[in-house]
Amino acid sequence: MQALVCRGGGQVALVADAPPPALPPGWARVRVRRAGICHTDLELARGYKGYTGILGHEFVGVVEACPDDRSWEGVRVVGEINAACGRCGACRRGDVTHCAHRQVLGILNLPGAFATHLALPAANLHRVPDSVSDAAAVFTEPLAAALEILEQAHVRPSDAVVVLGDGKLGLLCAQVLNRTGASCVLVGRHPAKLARAAAWGIETLRLAPGESAALQLGGADLVVDCTGRPAGLAEALAMVRPRGTVVLKSTFHGPATWAPADLVVREVTLLGSRCGPFAPALRLLASGGVQVEPLLTATYPLAQAEQAFAHAAQPGVLKVQLICEE
Amino acid sequence: MQALVCRGGGQVALVADAPPPALPPGWARVRVRRAGICHTDLELARGYKGYTGILGHEFVGVVEACPDDRSWEGVRVVGEINAACGRCGACRRGDVTHCAHRQVLGILNLPGAFATHLALPAANLHRVPDSVSDAAAVFTEPLAAALEILEQAHVRPSDAVVVLGDGKLGLLCAQVLNRTGASCVLVGRHPAKLARAAAWGIETLRLAPGESAALQLGGADLVVDCTGRPAGLAEALAMVRPRGTVVLKSTFHGPATWAPADLVVREVTLLGSRCGPFAPALRLLASGGVQVEPLLTATYPLAQAEQAFAHAAQPGVLKVQLICEE
Repeated sequence: MQALVCRGGGQVALVADAPPPALPPGWARVRVRRAGICHTDLELARGYKGYTGILGHEFVGVVEACPDDRSWEGVRVVGEINAACGRCGACRRGDVTHCAHRQVLGILNLPGAFATHLALPAANLHRVPDSVSDAAAVFTEPLAAALEILEQAHVRPSDAVVVLGDGKLGLLCAQVLNRTGASCVLVGRHPAKLARAAAWGIETLRLAPGESAALQLGGADLVVDCTGRPAGLAEALAMVRPRGTVVLKSTFHGPATWAPADLVVREVTLLGSRCGPFAPALRLLASGGVQVEPLLTATYPLAQAEQAFAHAAQPGVLKVQLICEE
Repeated sequence: MQALVCRGGGQVALVADAPPPALPPGWARVRVRRAGICHTDLELARGYKGYTGILGHEFVGVVEACPDDRSWEGVRVVGEINAACGRCGACRRGDVTHCAHRQVLGILNLPGAFATHLALPAANLHRVPDSVSDAAAVFTEPLAAALEILEQAHVRPSDAVVVLGDGKLGLLCAQVLNRTGASCVLVGRHPAKLARAAAWGIETLRLAPGESAALQLGGADLVVDCTGRPAGLAEALAMVRPRGTVVLKSTFHGPATWAPADLVVREVTLLGSRCGPFAPALRLLASGGVQVEPLLTATYPLAQAEQAFAHAAQPGVLKVQLICEE
């Protein structure tokens, strides 16, 4: 089958003869309709985690085969990306996204969604409500990741919240956090992206390169770093109040240097945050409570996946999606 | 008056003519009986925070004058070290230890306890129960700092807890955490210190230099870093389970380098932790629930404070106290 493959060392290539995915007991084979290119895909292509194989973990598709539960067949689905063993300590705690032996779609030992077909455990699938378009459904995974912040931290209506970074994830996090009633400010550098947030009623602050927002927004209760850059963590720590919380959302390849004594003296909580709950994400997409289609910059057929990938890596670009149906 | 003064740049000196402390409205002047030398004092002397002035923040003494509330006079007391403004955002939230304008005894703009006299707001004072010796009362401040972990994190009886570092603070944290019913292991390198903890019924693990405890103790729910070294944070992150908590207790002068992506992927919570509640610390000292006198290595008169300071800085030494009465 056709697929976009990460060769390692910054190389991605479209191949025509990728093997179709295996179908272990309890798994479903999904014909992919659309898939989205994420910042993590770009990082993986740059060498993060040393991944090689088919990329892609944001998708919508139709179940083509599910031998152990044929009621899934023909259903339009999205899928949680962590395939868990069900037996390790994390799985027994219910932390299946942290399974010690997990495979992760397009990220760890499991061929991804930039292909005509993928396979996932049926337990990972969620039916997509008819009112949610294919283009919107592909945002379920990143929207769930934004909702994970609210799974981990108690955001109060009286809180002052800052989201750093006006990329795809920042725009989703700001929408989710703005719904809590908290005062939420999105900080970024791109007028067009900030204008989108402003149109949704979110307060925004535009920074010039090298400028810090700590002076204007100092004392925030919760700061979410969606910058994807090591400097974002330093900026977040500079603006959070004593005993406040910094949420680290973005993964980037490489180390950060910081002074832990400041974290101790100010008793800051630093929360790492990754995959989140799909069911509320689908509810928000179905109800229109979160806007995702304005985040779509471009759509390419899978046959032009290399160009799509290059486009997604350009500065200022938001979501690029692939149409994967043959 | 006599006092041990930090000159900056690693220099401490005993002076005979330090000015007696000022006594603003609502403050009390305390005649210091005993004071303890802490790791933070050693770091301040090495240049941390650029502090100059009289060092010392762990003490017991007798109130000599409190013009606005004479009922304190003659009372044996310990004192919380943060003198708050009472008006800033942090004070209004009740976070007085994080007051934006605070003075901190022997640490920030407030002459410390390595002297014959000190001054603090009367609101900071706590009467010491008669059953608590002077030597034990000096441990109120570091014991409160250990209890701060339980103020910040919910430690469950079913949790696996690891304390890294068998110094003074590690031995206090291990005792406090062991009382929760959680499985608590103290990791260190000093047989004599670990033997103390073992005598209190705490499980211990001795490491050779360069050896990691992550293999034996991997998957811990809560890891407390009391090592005072940048490597302690990396070790703590290596052994905490996904979605577990790392508490950073020790301040050290300088940066740490780490890969934040690991914190994000494993959704670890990193908690900075500093000053804690005095009232429960005094209760635990009065009831004998925590053992502190075995942590006392040596006692010196204030007149030999320079020698005491040099002794406290030697490897393997636990608490060194000064007798400050004239």
